[in-house]
This record gives sequence, C-alpha cells and structure tokens, in this order.
Amino acid sequence: MQSRLTAEDTEKSAEMNPRVSSVTTLAHSAVQNDGMNSFNFEVNATEGAARAATLTSRRGVIETPVFMPVGTAGTVKGVRFEELESPELDARIILGNTYHLWLRPGIETIKACGGLHNFIGWNRPMLTDSGGFQVWSLGALRKITEEGTGFRSHIDGSLCFLSPEISMQVQAGLGAEIAMAFDECAPGEATHDEARQSMELTLRWAKRSKAAFEVTQAVSLRQLSNEGATQTDNLRYRQALFGIIQGSSHLDLRRESLQRTVEIGFDGYAIGGLSVGEEKHVMMEVIEDIVPRMPADKPRYLMGVGTPEDLIEAVARGVDMFDCVLPTRNGRTGQAFTSRGKLNIKNARYTLDQKPLDENCACSVCRRHTRAFIRHLYQSGEMLASILLTHHNLVFFLDTMKRVRQAIRSGQFAKFRREFTEQLNCGLES
Amino acid sequence: MQSRLTAEDTEKSAEMNPRVSSVTTLAHSAVQNDGMNSFNFEVNATEGAARAATLTSRRGVIETPVFMPVGTAGTVKGVRFEELESPELDARIILGNTYHLWLRPGIETIKACGGLHNFIGWNRPMLTDSGGFQVWSLGALRKITEEGTGFRSHIDGSLCFLSPEISMQVQAGLGAEIAMAFDECAPGEATHDEARQSMELTLRWAKRSKAAFEVTQAVSLRQLSNEGATQTDNLRYRQALFGIIQGSSHLDLRRESLQRTVEIGFDGYAIGGLSVGEEKHVMMEVIEDIVPRMPADKPRYLMGVGTPEDLIEAVARGVDMFDCVLPTRNGRTGQAFTSRGKLNIKNARYTLDQKPLDENCACSVCRRHTRAFIRHLYQSGEMLASILLTHHNLVFFLDTMKRVRQAIRSGQFAKFRREFTEQLNCGLES
Repeated sequence: MQSRLTAEDTEKSAEMNPRVSSVTTLAHSAVQNDGMNSFNFEVNATEGAARAATLTSRRGVIETPVFMPVGTAGTVKGVRFEELESPELDARIILGNTYHLWLRPGIETIKACGGLHNFIGWNRPMLTDSGGFQVWSLGALRKITEEGTGFRSHIDGSLCFLSPEISMQVQAGLGAEIAMAFDECAPGEATHDEARQSMELTLRWAKRSKAAFEVTQAVSLRQLSNEGATQTDNLRYRQALFGIIQGSSHLDLRRESLQRTVEIGFDGYAIGGLSVGEEKHVMMEVIEDIVPRMPADKPRYLMGVGTPEDLIEAVARGVDMFDCVLPTRNGRTGQAFTSRGKLNIKNARYTLDQKPLDENCACSVCRRHTRAFIRHLYQSGEMLASILLTHHNLVFFLDTMKRVRQAIRSGQFAKFRREFTEQLNCGLES
Repeated sequence: MQSRLTAEDTEKSAEMNPRVSSVTTLAHSAVQNDGMNSFNFEVNATEGAARAATLTSRRGVIETPVFMPVGTAGTVKGVRFEELESPELDARIILGNTYHLWLRPGIETIKACGGLHNFIGWNRPMLTDSGGFQVWSLGALRKITEEGTGFRSHIDGSLCFLSPEISMQVQAGLGAEIAMAFDECAPGEATHDEARQSMELTLRWAKRSKAAFEVTQAVSLRQLSNEGATQTDNLRYRQALFGIIQGSSHLDLRRESLQRTVEIGFDGYAIGGLSVGEEKHVMMEVIEDIVPRMPADKPRYLMGVGTPEDLIEAVARGVDMFDCVLPTRNGRTGQAFTSRGKLNIKNARYTLDQKPLDENCACSVCRRHTRAFIRHLYQSGEMLASILLTHHNLVFFLDTMKRVRQAIRSGQFAKFRREFTEQLNCGLES
C-alpha cells in the first residue's frame, strides 16, 4: 500500500495546533534573524546580468550559478553518492521528485527512515519539486480541479490525488532544504485564455502552498524542539519555499504571474513551464523579459532547463539555478555532451576510435576509456555504458558551471561565453 | 560484420613461419629462464591441503587463493575499473570471456585497439576462458564435431565455428596473462561412456590447443621483437596456458584426464565441468579426489565455482583460483551475500530496515546505505540497486579470500574455516 495524505490531514494538523499562526510567525522571524545558519542568498559578483552568488542552506553552502543533478527516485541514476561528492563532480545540491517518492516507497516509509536525506544516505542539500509538473505531464491520466490534481499512478494505475496542501506535507516529510510551491503548467502552445486560467490557478495554489507550508514548518519546529534539538543544530531551521512563475509564452501573463507571486512572498522564485515543447527562441524571450524583473536578492531558478548552451545563455540573463535530466537521461541513451557538441556513441564511426569522449575533458572516464570501448559497452547493453556516459556528462555540466562561476567572479564571463559557444558550434568532426 | 578466424588461419601462420617450432622452443626456454618476470608460481605457506601462494604474471603479482571477478564482455557488470582497483576491492585479476568478446566487438576490433587490456582500460592481469564451456552451454544451438564446435551466435543467430586453433588465435589477440585450452564439457549426469567420449575429445583438443598456442606465442614474440620491445618490457613474455581436466562425476575418468593432461604439459591446471547441475556432494567428491593429485608446483583453478562456502571448502582441499558470476549476477537480481548467509532484498521485511546489508561488513555500501534504501532502489528498477549489491558482493568474495590467505599464512585457516562456516549457517534472522 502506498501511503497517501489527504487535504484533511493538513487541516487536522492545523486543528491540533491552534497556535499555528503565531508559532509560525515566531519561528519564521527567529530564523530570519539567524543569519548564516538559515537560508540565505548573497550576490558576490556580477557581470552584466550574470551573477555569482552564495546560497547558504542548513545542510551546506551552494555557490551559484548551480546545476542540480536530478535524483528522481532518491538516486541520480547510475551514479554512486561517493562520486557525486568527489572533487570531480562535487554536486552541492541534488533534486528529488516528490511525485515519484510519494508513490514509491511512499512518504510514511521515508519518514520512518528519518527523512529523505537519511533514507538515501546523502547529507548535502536537496531540493524537491512539488509534483505539480509531473502529474501535469501525465496528460490523459490526470484531471485538474480547483482542489488539486487527480491522477492514476504510473506504477500501478491506482487513483491518487495531489494538492498544494498534500504536496507541502509530503515535502515537509521529505525534508529537503528547498521545497517548491504546487503549480499547474500550461502547454507551450496554450492560448492567452488558457494560459491565464492556468496562471490564476497556480497563483491560488501558490497561496495555499505557502499557508500549508507555514503549518508544516511550525509542526516540524515544535517536534524538533520536543526532541531537544539545540540552538546549534542547523537542522532545526525551516525549509525554504520557492514560488513558481507561470504564464506560458505570453509575456504579459508572465509579468503578472511574477508580480503576484512576489506579493505572496517566497524564499526564491522559479520560472516553470518552459522547455515543454515551445520553440527555443520563445523560451529565451521569456527568460530575457522576466529574469531581470525577478527580485535581485532572491535566487532565480529556471526549472527543467537545459542544454549546456541554454545554461550559459540563461546565466547571461541572470538565472542562478538549473536542473535537468539531460546529462543523466541522454547518458543512458548513448549521448555524450562534449566541449564540441553532442556525440552519439551508437554511431559506427566510433567502432575503432581511440579518442576519449571529449578530447578537452580530464574526467576519470575520459582519462581512461576510449569511444571504441564505450561504444562496445553500449552496443552490448552493458550497464557500464550508462555509468560512464552519465558520469562524463555530469562532469561536463558541473564543471561548466564551475567555470561559469569563476568567470563571473573574475569578470571574464563575456569572454568565456563567447569561447564556450564558439567551441560548441565547431562540432566534433571539424 | 563479426570477424571470424578459421582453422586455416592458424595453418597459414604456421606455413608462413617454417621455423615456428624452433622459435617456440627458444622463446619458451628464454622465458623459463627469466625468473620473476615471467609466469611463475610459488607456494609460500600451507595448512593441511590449503596453500597460500604467489603467482607472478607479466602484468603483476596475484596472491592465491584468489577469486577472479567475471568481466564477460570486457566489463565486470556494474563496476567501474577504478572501483576494482580501489583498496576496498583490489581485484588483482579479472576474467574475460572469449566467446562473448569474439562475437562482439570481434577480435579484429580488439586487436586494432591494442588488445583486450588497452581496449577496456585495465592494466592488471586477466584470464580468458577458451569459449569451450560457453558454446557447450548453448545446448541445442551448437553442434560438436572432431574439428570443433559449430553454433549459432546468441546475438544475431549467425553460424559460427570455434576450434582449439581458433580459440588460441583469438586468445592470443585478446592477450590475457592466462589463456585456457579449448575443451568440451560433459553434463553432470553424463554416463561413463558419454563422459569418456567427451574427455577423450577434450584431450585431443588439449593437444591441438597447446600446439596452436605455441605458434601464436612465437608469432607474437617475433612481432614484438620487430617492434623493438626491450628486454625490460614485461609484455614481451608469452602468455600462460592452462589445461582443463574433464570426466564429469566419474572419478576414474577424472584421474585419467588429469594424468594425460599433465603429460601434455601446461602452466597450470583447471578442473572444468563442475557446478553444471550435479549434486553439491558430487562436486566435493571430485574436488577431494582430484585436487591432491594435481601438480603441487602449478596453480590449480576450479572453474565457475562458486558460493562462499564452496570457495572455503575447495581451498581446504588445495584449490588456488576461482571464478564465478554469483556475486555479480546475483547482485543484479537482488541478492546480497553476507557473513550470515544470503539476503534477498526483494523481501518486504526489509522495507523499513535501517541495518546495512551485512552488519559485519565495513564496505562503502554498508557504511552508507540501509537495506530499506537498497530495497527501494531494487523495487524501482534503479541501476544503483545492481551497482550497490554487486559492489558489496564483490567485497564479500574478495575480502573473504584475503582473510583466507592471511589465515593460511598465519596457520589459522582451520579456525577461520570453522568460524566462517558457523557464522554463515547462523542465518540472518537468528
């Protein structure tokens, strides 16, 4: 049986805590006064719209711009946690998917195992999405109402229901450093009317998300206090909650969504509903228009994006945080990201190729293995093909972001961006 | 196109080298005079029939008793080579399968990539089997004649043919430190007549294997010499060739097979045709009877065996080398080997289990991850389940053998064997 929380659960916990609102206010202000130990975002350097910043969470410091590897079901597919922590990858924050973890193993299991970090054995920061995008992406399998989204589990077909309140309860149980508001996504080609409807629903859900989130944080804080957590225990601090800007490709709606989301007030702001089928130039137009209007003193997170060039271009427009399945998923389907563009290891031209995946890469995969061997592994259906390609791809994404941060801090980002893009466009065969 | 060598290829190379026999003799005696740098086996300590020895190959020293992880298609499934080399695993020798590598990527590809070590990026010793057992295990897909075994590829159904001569050429191209004679295996329940027929064929094939092997070694040596290999280059040394004892469960045939295989003369001797469906006590009877009669000054290799208890019992009877897919294959199907017996991670009792796979294990998997998490990974079809279970299982096998070696060297093997077996029989739930 999968554990399921209902909207009533949240109400119940509010009933059981008559002093919730005042507790929340107190807790919130205590955290806000606590400086470096709580959630904190500080811009250290800028170059044009690009910025290098330091995000301090209760489980460690994250330098931005940052790419967050996706750990859908509590694992970045094909990568051991020791590798993620190694200097070569040094992933400072990874993402977990509320939808997947809620369905399997279920939130009661994860709570019984001490929360998501304890359960999976990872003590660095995490971010959980709200499940909103993933139930939306189920398409015909889901039905969206004012209350939330009903859907059939992709695992066993059972009927499930996710709402802002349930998502907040589940995310509190998971215990990531950053939780996301429960949103609705409109398709890339949504009409103005459709996109407005969706945006308005997302705004109502954002308010409900924030209210439910405050309750969960107050409950968690009281539990920790009862358990004797001390003032020096970072984990007594509340999670952070990010709001999500929607509005499809309609800039007026995007601006309105941004303004009204900021009015609700969150610890950071994300742009959702991009990279969902719209043209690339449409995505860039939205980013170009919206990012400069986002609060400068809060992290800006572009959800589900993207290719290495997307990352660089979005950083140039002021984005701080990214997540994407590309390095991991494409690694599993035989694609390597390289400094000179994508390489499809299935291609017969690599059968005898003694070069590494990327001649400009010094990662452990490129130091040791040839394209010929990795192609052989892929053709033979060997797990090691996915392991090696995923590792190299993650190094490429994370190392690129490291170089981006260094470039911004040293005022060399414009030069870096130009050279990086030129090289990428060279192609592997030239 | 898969590359295929024919029996004629070997004859051709002999024709092209009229002085093959004398070259071979010279080369052989040169190597034999070269002490530590060539293949050498030295027993350092014994306790009862158990022995601790040092096997010196051109790519490094192997302490025995040793367990060789199986790297069928050039990869120990789910394990990066860095892990195999790490102090935690420290695999000194791994096995490659001639059958699989010959079919894919093909020997011409591997030769063009500088041999198997270069191709896969592994510079420690390797052993290749002959392909005999694997084509035999194809069952209805193969047809055995005096010349060799015709079979259909499990990959594309194409007709292929493997013989002693072709196996030796392929194994020379692969370039492992230890090659195996091409043999035929009889089923566990073979009658005396069937087993004798099979054994006689294996003996004729053993002679042909040795003759063809000498040719390949002479050719390789001459090539290396032409390429300017120096006296200090270990890789100029010949490969070692092991003979294989057959005879099913019939002890008289086993003894005869042993005697006549030793008369042909090999660098080491293997017991084949066990663990192929016969009762466990039958296997132990053969081992108990045959191993003490095997040459004491050569390595003794028990092929395809076995469980941790099989390994300990065979060591107690004088076996030095083992290979088996159990730690890797069973890891992929959710089974952990532990100091208290097998653990099936699929079992629902582990859903909330906060213990490591093995409470007596200090490996990186057991230090970090719980049974609950690994079960979740397995249930979710996550690659990391296989990766973690395989890693732990290999640590268990390799660490057990390390402790066996230490025990024999310190005269504590009888005690170790008793305690190890007692603990194994305790079970996980007691």
